[in-house]
Amino acid sequence: MRRIIKPEKSSWTAICQRPVLKQDKLLTLVRQVFEDIKSEGDKALLDYIEKFDKVSLSDIRVSGKELENAELKLSGNLKNAIKLAKNNIEIFHCSQMDEKLPVETTEGVVCWQEIRPIQKVGLYVPGGTAPLFSTVLMLAVPAQIAGCEDIVLCTPPDKNGEIHPAILYAAKLCGVKKIFKVGGIQAIASMTYGTETISSVYKLFGPGNQYVTAAKQYAQTLGTAIDMPAGPSELLVLADISAKPSYIASDLLSQAEHGEDSQVVFITDTLDLIIEVERELEKQVQMLPREEIARRALKNSKLILMSDKQEMIEFINLYAPEHFILVVSNEEYFLQNIQNAGSVFIGNYTPESAGDYASGTNHTLPTGGFARVYSGLNMDAFTKKITFQKISPEGILKIGKSIELMAEEEGLIGHRNAVSIRLNDLLKKSSK
Amino acid sequence: MRRIIKPEKSSWTAICQRPVLKQDKLLTLVRQVFEDIKSEGDKALLDYIEKFDKVSLSDIRVSGKELENAELKLSGNLKNAIKLAKNNIEIFHCSQMDEKLPVETTEGVVCWQEIRPIQKVGLYVPGGTAPLFSTVLMLAVPAQIAGCEDIVLCTPPDKNGEIHPAILYAAKLCGVKKIFKVGGIQAIASMTYGTETISSVYKLFGPGNQYVTAAKQYAQTLGTAIDMPAGPSELLVLADISAKPSYIASDLLSQAEHGEDSQVVFITDTLDLIIEVERELEKQVQMLPREEIARRALKNSKLILMSDKQEMIEFINLYAPEHFILVVSNEEYFLQNIQNAGSVFIGNYTPESAGDYASGTNHTLPTGGFARVYSGLNMDAFTKKITFQKISPEGILKIGKSIELMAEEEGLIGHRNAVSIRLNDLLKKSSK
Repeated sequence: MRRIIKPEKSSWTAICQRPVLKQDKLLTLVRQVFEDIKSEGDKALLDYIEKFDKVSLSDIRVSGKELENAELKLSGNLKNAIKLAKNNIEIFHCSQMDEKLPVETTEGVVCWQEIRPIQKVGLYVPGGTAPLFSTVLMLAVPAQIAGCEDIVLCTPPDKNGEIHPAILYAAKLCGVKKIFKVGGIQAIASMTYGTETISSVYKLFGPGNQYVTAAKQYAQTLGTAIDMPAGPSELLVLADISAKPSYIASDLLSQAEHGEDSQVVFITDTLDLIIEVERELEKQVQMLPREEIARRALKNSKLILMSDKQEMIEFINLYAPEHFILVVSNEEYFLQNIQNAGSVFIGNYTPESAGDYASGTNHTLPTGGFARVYSGLNMDAFTKKITFQKISPEGILKIGKSIELMAEEEGLIGHRNAVSIRLNDLLKKSSK
Repeated sequence: MRRIIKPEKSSWTAICQRPVLKQDKLLTLVRQVFEDIKSEGDKALLDYIEKFDKVSLSDIRVSGKELENAELKLSGNLKNAIKLAKNNIEIFHCSQMDEKLPVETTEGVVCWQEIRPIQKVGLYVPGGTAPLFSTVLMLAVPAQIAGCEDIVLCTPPDKNGEIHPAILYAAKLCGVKKIFKVGGIQAIASMTYGTETISSVYKLFGPGNQYVTAAKQYAQTLGTAIDMPAGPSELLVLADISAKPSYIASDLLSQAEHGEDSQVVFITDTLDLIIEVERELEKQVQMLPREEIARRALKNSKLILMSDKQEMIEFINLYAPEHFILVVSNEEYFLQNIQNAGSVFIGNYTPESAGDYASGTNHTLPTGGFARVYSGLNMDAFTKKITFQKISPEGILKIGKSIELMAEEEGLIGHRNAVSIRLNDLLKKSSK
């Protein structure tokens, strides 16, 4: 990791820069796959699975039998762990679902919002080396709580045409019934257009590699909504001497092992702490099976010494970290002033891993500085809000004149007339 | 309007189709303007204003003097109308801002969400024939309530280089200080990249013509968020004999006058009502200054007779109208079952105009069927939510084992270690 000692403010924007992903080159491929799946449906889909995943499937649907078998392949302990995680995620996401009471903005003018599920959602769960069954929980639990009617889950098959049993188990636990052995661009294209087997959806969720990311962006231009722009994972740790250096190092490494483009940043006002964290990093990185990946990620990463708390929070808000671990004695100051972050982990006993799996918060979070403008996945992402209004005769008498004046000034006489015709009737009635 | 009598379900998707907007052609122009403003800033901006708006400006900033003068040019009645509208919009949007209380998902594991404003927002207010000062209220009131630090408002100048006083008055009333005489693609490009005069923003809001819409979509591909995909305005009215045909016609016309690509749909289970509405439409359309536009919009529009309430609600949910006026004796059935709509107007005395100006709800709503997946503008759009979690030693002891198991199964040993190192310390302590 690169040490940066008291950087000038003029250099902050450069320090905050993440590696830029270039996806323009992928667009030609993405368009081709989308076009083929649009015109040929399942046939094109099976061809692409054979081409990209090197496996020939006769049926992309995960069968009931496969779901049952998956359950048998997992240890009772792991199943209980998944259940605990699901339970916590469920409790936290349920707590977000309060309806708002009606408001009377003017006497006789009642307005309110109601939450409705997005009826058709598509969940993408990456395959590859790591079977991300935790992502199944993070996507399917809120979809289920929201009441989405049609939940489609796509995940790539391995070379034997199979899906990791923990992914199937988690999906079953969350009540997902439409599970397909399809990954990559072809999965996103299928959920966008629909095929004979896979139904089209209104919104796409979930992480993925650069192909999946490019495909989701393309789907968005076609009118299918997506959860958020994706990018490599990142962690910023802010600590003072109340923190344990070995814990800090373990957290930084848990992020660094994700991929060589992961970014980890450590900020403190104590030089000694930087030295101790560096020592711990070296000690712990050697124990990781993914040591090489972690070391490469650490090369892009920074240990930054700063002067005071004002400077630190200002920098963090500019950086807008996906994950923000905060271990300082004066927590309150930072909690009050943090403006831009995906998820915040407070104190010595709140590792990022907890939020990745089982504390209850969602692990699908905005990266690359997008925490300045996007939330992580929450119930809002799986629902939309409809506004309602009901106006009584008294209400329209109270606000009608104002509407007439404003509509007239905007030159929209039809808008004015819709009010005038009602006011005239009411005034006639009341003068009788 | 076209009468459609009891259409077969197989034809519904076609009936729900909106006119398709082609924006591909605009992309070359949009790219060019973005490139120029990125590299030359204000200089390019002034050139484009001269080119597109036919006006030569020395300063694009609206001065304090101009703001004061705007106020003097408006009647007291109009100013009061704008204040009433602002007040109602404020009350309704404030009511959306409840914080959620912390939840203990497992003993010792506390999670919560906090709302934070998006710090920099850009508001676009169209100019042209109609000075949409109501749009200023709909964008600036929630931005102000959210606490957005940097609110930039762009709106095109007229041929004399001026802005309609009601737009300036509404902006001042909402506390907007950075107002610029810039419209079209060049406004969106300036707020995306920033120039010497206009600061860049994180998210762009507001309606606009096809150029603005294409520019916002392009800005999104560059990483600047936008409020929602835009399209022509639309209204669906569902009524039974409890409704007044003259009111229905006035509402349909208030939507039809927006533009010739506006769409209005009337649904009922009573043929007589269709006949009466047709008669009223013909009578009222003649009184409109925008009669020609309204007549052209009506040509694309439909009066649909349906068999029963189940069929009607199913069709409406498929159509997903931006505005939905509901005037029936059995309101409850439709309120409970409506899934997809931007905003719902209930009863004989709730014209769409009320929501357009002054009831309190937001008039920036999803069109073109996007109500299936997007909300209209509300406080969520001007804020994001950060999740927080704080775990006690007891808490991590309770969930730590599950995290270790799941991380291990996913092959992420660094994630496991971050928990193990803490558990080991705690278990050592407790065994002493």
